[in-house]
Amino acid sequence: MAVSAPGSGVGHEDWLVRRLLRHPVRIVPLGFLVAILLGTGVLMLPPATEEHRYTPFVTALFTATSAVSVTGLVVVDTPTYWTPVGLVMITVLTQLGGLGILTGGTLVVLVVARQLGLRTRLLVQAETAEFGIGDVRRVLLRIGLTMLVCEAVMTAVLALRFAVGYDYPAGRAIWYGFFHAVQAFNNGGFSLYSDNLVGFAHDGWVTLPLAFGTIIGGLGFPALFEATRGWRRPGRWTVSTKLTVWGSLVLLLVGFAVLLAAEWANPRTLGPFGWEGKALAAFTQDAYIRTGGFNTVDVNGLDEASFPLLIALMFVGGGSASTAGGIKVATFFLLAFCIWAELRGEPDVTVGRRRLASASQRQALTVALLSVALVVAGTVTLILLTEGVSYDRALFEVTSAFSTTGLSTGVAQTLPSAGQLTLIVLMYIGRVGTLTLGSAIALNTRRRLYRYPEEQPIVG
Amino acid sequence: MAVSAPGSGVGHEDWLVRRLLRHPVRIVPLGFLVAILLGTGVLMLPPATEEHRYTPFVTALFTATSAVSVTGLVVVDTPTYWTPVGLVMITVLTQLGGLGILTGGTLVVLVVARQLGLRTRLLVQAETAEFGIGDVRRVLLRIGLTMLVCEAVMTAVLALRFAVGYDYPAGRAIWYGFFHAVQAFNNGGFSLYSDNLVGFAHDGWVTLPLAFGTIIGGLGFPALFEATRGWRRPGRWTVSTKLTVWGSLVLLLVGFAVLLAAEWANPRTLGPFGWEGKALAAFTQDAYIRTGGFNTVDVNGLDEASFPLLIALMFVGGGSASTAGGIKVATFFLLAFCIWAELRGEPDVTVGRRRLASASQRQALTVALLSVALVVAGTVTLILLTEGVSYDRALFEVTSAFSTTGLSTGVAQTLPSAGQLTLIVLMYIGRVGTLTLGSAIALNTRRRLYRYPEEQPIVG
Ligand SMILES: [K+]
Ligand SMILES: [K+]
Repeated sequence: MAVSAPGSGVGHEDWLVRRLLRHPVRIVPLGFLVAILLGTGVLMLPPATEEHRYTPFVTALFTATSAVSVTGLVVVDTPTYWTPVGLVMITVLTQLGGLGILTGGTLVVLVVARQLGLRTRLLVQAETAEFGIGDVRRVLLRIGLTMLVCEAVMTAVLALRFAVGYDYPAGRAIWYGFFHAVQAFNNGGFSLYSDNLVGFAHDGWVTLPLAFGTIIGGLGFPALFEATRGWRRPGRWTVSTKLTVWGSLVLLLVGFAVLLAAEWANPRTLGPFGWEGKALAAFTQDAYIRTGGFNTVDVNGLDEASFPLLIALMFVGGGSASTAGGIKVATFFLLAFCIWAELRGEPDVTVGRRRLASASQRQALTVALLSVALVVAGTVTLILLTEGVSYDRALFEVTSAFSTTGLSTGVAQTLPSAGQLTLIVLMYIGRVGTLTLGSAIALNTRRRLYRYPEEQPIVG
Repeated sequence: MAVSAPGSGVGHEDWLVRRLLRHPVRIVPLGFLVAILLGTGVLMLPPATEEHRYTPFVTALFTATSAVSVTGLVVVDTPTYWTPVGLVMITVLTQLGGLGILTGGTLVVLVVARQLGLRTRLLVQAETAEFGIGDVRRVLLRIGLTMLVCEAVMTAVLALRFAVGYDYPAGRAIWYGFFHAVQAFNNGGFSLYSDNLVGFAHDGWVTLPLAFGTIIGGLGFPALFEATRGWRRPGRWTVSTKLTVWGSLVLLLVGFAVLLAAEWANPRTLGPFGWEGKALAAFTQDAYIRTGGFNTVDVNGLDEASFPLLIALMFVGGGSASTAGGIKVATFFLLAFCIWAELRGEPDVTVGRRRLASASQRQALTVALLSVALVVAGTVTLILLTEGVSYDRALFEVTSAFSTTGLSTGVAQTLPSAGQLTLIVLMYIGRVGTLTLGSAIALNTRRRLYRYPEEQPIVG
């Protein structure tokens, strides 16, 4: 697989990029594992904790995995347990994890697209031409720049708000702004407040920038880049981008409507607010649900009607090659289009004047059903390993871990080590699994010299 | 659509068969609806109840739907609530429902197979030739005969056992034998004992014949016929039959192993038995799980590890065009083969030297995902309509209703009318839904004169 193109500068610093391009499917899981283990090591050391003692291995591993996989589930209270050393480490791990998945995911998309000769608009020039190290570096730079700008803007707005509205001293205001900005863009979900963002539910200056940062980070670079470049002609977007952008919008609207309806009069969530407050809290919570992991309403206080919605939205997740998890918006809507075509008796599945390759259909089916199987297996494991956790709470926490969302009913903290290890495995698989699996099966296509006769069994 | 063939005798009695062949997809749901409403009317009348008063509409509707859809969920205690009149009505409704789904389903399979030019071995002679009324009548006769022989054998064995082992008078022994034989073959699940078959868990003379009857009825006529006719050369079975027969065997073994392991020492289920008793009760319960609906162990006493297994097995169900419900064994294993092929990077999905049509894959996907959506929607509806039902119990009862299994934790009886109506709708959709949907989408294929350019989005 030739990577370098004539005219591109191939320097020493390019070895990682070259490796990534050669073995994208192996490097991503390995890189995440190394980051997690290093992070665990640091977080275990006494300077990382307020009590200045060694943190138990599973607690540190859980926190590091949660940070690197940008999940945000916690087993200790973030602001009171960790010192600034620990918090900086969490920030670094989140930033690394987010950057890793954004760049790794985008490169995998590029490699897969090139291998299969697929249409992508990540490289502006020739669409399916060979791309070199220079092109790759440009894409990585663009990702870095997007991240930097988003985080800087959020940090600035939040710092100003904390300083002016809450009288934080300058240093503290900037640190708090920066910490949450990093978490938002990377869809991390850690917070410096024990009640997460519930205390700011009414304050759009804090929650709205974080919501928009969450949405941008969770959209993924391929869709983000194509949608912003080609915003004048959405009809010409690739199918992936169409599914991701319009699908995300649909899910945002559905989530907003259901949350508002279900929680409107709930005294433990939106009940106490006026209508603007209800709308604000519902919108921001909605933006954080699918993967951000912040919460502006008390998750334990949510109405019974909201739980299935949250679980479904978490499971779907965000955009492909984004900081979001889940089976991905494009996968979900691709399956919906398949079912719709089947019910209408259409021979082809068409999305916006494009016919879906049947290979994509089988990939989507595989990703979705294996994810269902994983969540079910995780839930059952959690139930069997622990006493007194109800099925719905276990399902919620497992889905949150698998989809690296980080919303929690607080179950994670009460679990024994075996249960926490289950969630750790789920966060890791959820983070690297769908991307790795999706690209591995896309690339690993065998050719057969013979075909068996076709048969069409009756179904149902 | 020409139905009659030269030489076949077309009499007056053939109008139903002709209609069925012309509109199989419409007649089945309509026929079930009529039977349910007539049954409801009869069950509401005072002579049907021990207290000789009018039964409330929802109770009668629930019981009639449960009987016609061969589910076996109950909202009143069968032996103490209904008089022999009511019980005979339940038997008639179960027999009608079972015969209806066996014949309707088999005819639909025939019609679909002929329309699509598919391989089927239901008609011995020319495989895809036009078939006439005469052929259809022969198939229906075979189904009737199979049913009659199975039920007669079970009735005889059970009646003897009840008379000799339990000193029932002759009439009572025959009636009890006949009632349970009809329930077993039709996968009905009603019982004349308040604890269902728990009292007979140790008695293989009672539970084994019922288990085998359940398995035969739940295999479906297409698979049963091909497997028994062609038992010497299983390699030449159609894909449907291979998937159904071997798949059922795999599910039976898995269910048996898990039940035995999970319940071995459970004092509320298998604990008190010796090892032969444990094996007997586990095997018979295993045979009833996927759709029979009898229980030889106390469902409420089951270990937490058994519940997910039961829910999964109920959801999968039995054979196509059988008295079983669920998404069907063939659908489940077809999807498993798709995923396996995808993970191995195979371009084709092959089952026993046959390549699966991609149409079948999309059908299986549609049936499975719509069924998941229905069960989730049903569970959420039940939770919202009722107080104090936990998610796992609601999921269990809803899956049992949808898959027309009839295993119950007793939740159905405690539900308010709205909750019972939810289960009624689920039983009806579960009974006629997958078959109707499966055949409707198989038959309703549009032709397009143009195709859009293909595109393969990234998945996951
Ligand atoms: K998160
Ligand atoms: K049943």
